[in-house]
Amino acid sequence: MRKISVIGIGAGDPDQLTVQAIREIERARVFFVLDKGEAKRDLVALREGILAKYGRDHRVVHAQDPPRDRQPEDYRAAVAEWHRLRVTLYARLIRDELPDDGHGAFLVWGDPALYDSTITLVEAVSRELDLDYSVIPGVSSVSTLAARHRIPLNRIGEPVQFTTGRRLAEDRPGDAVVLLDANCTFQRYYGEDLEIFWGAYLGTPDEILLSGPLAEIGPEIERRRAEARAEKGWIMDTYLLRSRP
Amino acid sequence: MRKISVIGIGAGDPDQLTVQAIREIERARVFFVLDKGEAKRDLVALREGILAKYGRDHRVVHAQDPPRDRQPEDYRAAVAEWHRLRVTLYARLIRDELPDDGHGAFLVWGDPALYDSTITLVEAVSRELDLDYSVIPGVSSVSTLAARHRIPLNRIGEPVQFTTGRRLAEDRPGDAVVLLDANCTFQRYYGEDLEIFWGAYLGTPDEILLSGPLAEIGPEIERRRAEARAEKGWIMDTYLLRSRP
Ligand SMILES: C[S@@+](CC[C@H](N)C(=O)[O-])C[C@H]1O[C@@H](n2cnc3c(N)ncnc32)[C@H](O)[C@@H]1O
Ligand SMILES: C[S@@+](CC[C@H](N)C(=O)[O-])C[C@H]1O[C@@H](n2cnc3c(N)ncnc32)[C@H](O)[C@@H]1O
Repeated sequence: MRKISVIGIGAGDPDQLTVQAIREIERARVFFVLDKGEAKRDLVALREGILAKYGRDHRVVHAQDPPRDRQPEDYRAAVAEWHRLRVTLYARLIRDELPDDGHGAFLVWGDPALYDSTITLVEAVSRELDLDYSVIPGVSSVSTLAARHRIPLNRIGEPVQFTTGRRLAEDRPGDAVVLLDANCTFQRYYGEDLEIFWGAYLGTPDEILLSGPLAEIGPEIERRRAEARAEKGWIMDTYLLRSRP
Repeated sequence: MRKISVIGIGAGDPDQLTVQAIREIERARVFFVLDKGEAKRDLVALREGILAKYGRDHRVVHAQDPPRDRQPEDYRAAVAEWHRLRVTLYARLIRDELPDDGHGAFLVWGDPALYDSTITLVEAVSRELDLDYSVIPGVSSVSTLAARHRIPLNRIGEPVQFTTGRRLAEDRPGDAVVLLDANCTFQRYYGEDLEIFWGAYLGTPDEILLSGPLAEIGPEIERRRAEARAEKGWIMDTYLLRSRP
């Protein structure tokens, strides 16, 4: 039977790989790398560095992720259609490029369980192809954010919500970690007594950390984010928004 | 200056250590291990296994965590008082056991940013002693739960709340990951159309995984949990509760 490993590789620093992940990388023979356009070239390079170091007798299969409508009329329908296209693509790649008893792998940014579709895609493919798949957890960008700011994510005994920029625009659910925010959605909450812990390119040499009372530091984050994004051509950032004690 | 590393070691499997964590363990010379009573002896043993394997020329300082009132009248006050006692203890340990230019470390279960007080304690100590401290993120029990069940924590683009049993007893905030639940608080939601993904002793040889529609599988989880707890003398479990699609 074909075997697929979905491997969390940490959020930017190759030394965030776990022993488990390294072992799984050493065992897999075919790595599927889905390019998401120009902007993410640096991220693909990081994956290739990891494979050059830990891969054994392996092959890399590159493919282009299907294009995605970023400003759809109907967000859910667009996501569903994109998902369908990707399942077809992943199934074809695995069928064509992995021998019947082969061991393939996807290297997933951060922790595969957080705002990443690889598990769901491989699960969908496993309904079409005979497939044994497993998931290796990783250090997420959120854990890295907290570690670099040297803070816990939660107040003692209190909840913390993981959410997206899109959902944060609708409401702020108490203390929140925000991913996938292309629009500095924290702006909407300058009027509230919050603090923010922000990080971009976490775990990489370009890491930027900023924190403080939201209304004070927010505008600086907006500025630094726009500058960094213009300079590098892409940005990945995440933040914790919480009420002040 | 004294240096302290707060190192996430993963949630049960020593192979969840990251390269970064291993390197930090190799560098530190004094490890502070706080025993939390009989029940957690197995966990201390796991830490000792890690030190035996990766520690270099190191010393382990054991101490007893101050006792904690588990059924306090005033929860917040009890937590604050316990915190104060622990800061005093940690400050004393670091002052007495670590040379002025020494490198000490705490090995923290899972990810230090999730429902763990070590960062906060070391931060408080750093206000009393001259201290340079850093945090190494780890793979959390929550990431391990998701990986073992091969599920994402969030529905596509949707939020997920991290919370405690105590807070879940007050209300259910949409899809939720629950830690620190000694009372199977999910019971309260048998009347709702939810599914549960539950795991105990994750990453260890005793791992138990159960999942399914909450009302169906919940009672079995209660049973298995009580049995396992009686047999081993302690249990660590966590779960994702989510609405059915
Ligand atoms: C598609 S999600 C994947 C998250 C990933 N699975 C994880 O565990 O970090 C991408 C989002 O994660 C966050 N992110 C990932 N890597 C990051 C990094 N190195 N620095 C800052 N944010 C990052 C950003 O919010 C980004 O929009
Ligand atoms: C004090 S919190 C610490 C969490 C830890 N920092 C982490 O990242 O996993 C302890 C709670 O974590 C969860 N937990 C930790 N390790 C676990 C394991 N191996 N299996 C299941 N649950 C675990 C349980 O809910 C437990 O009550």
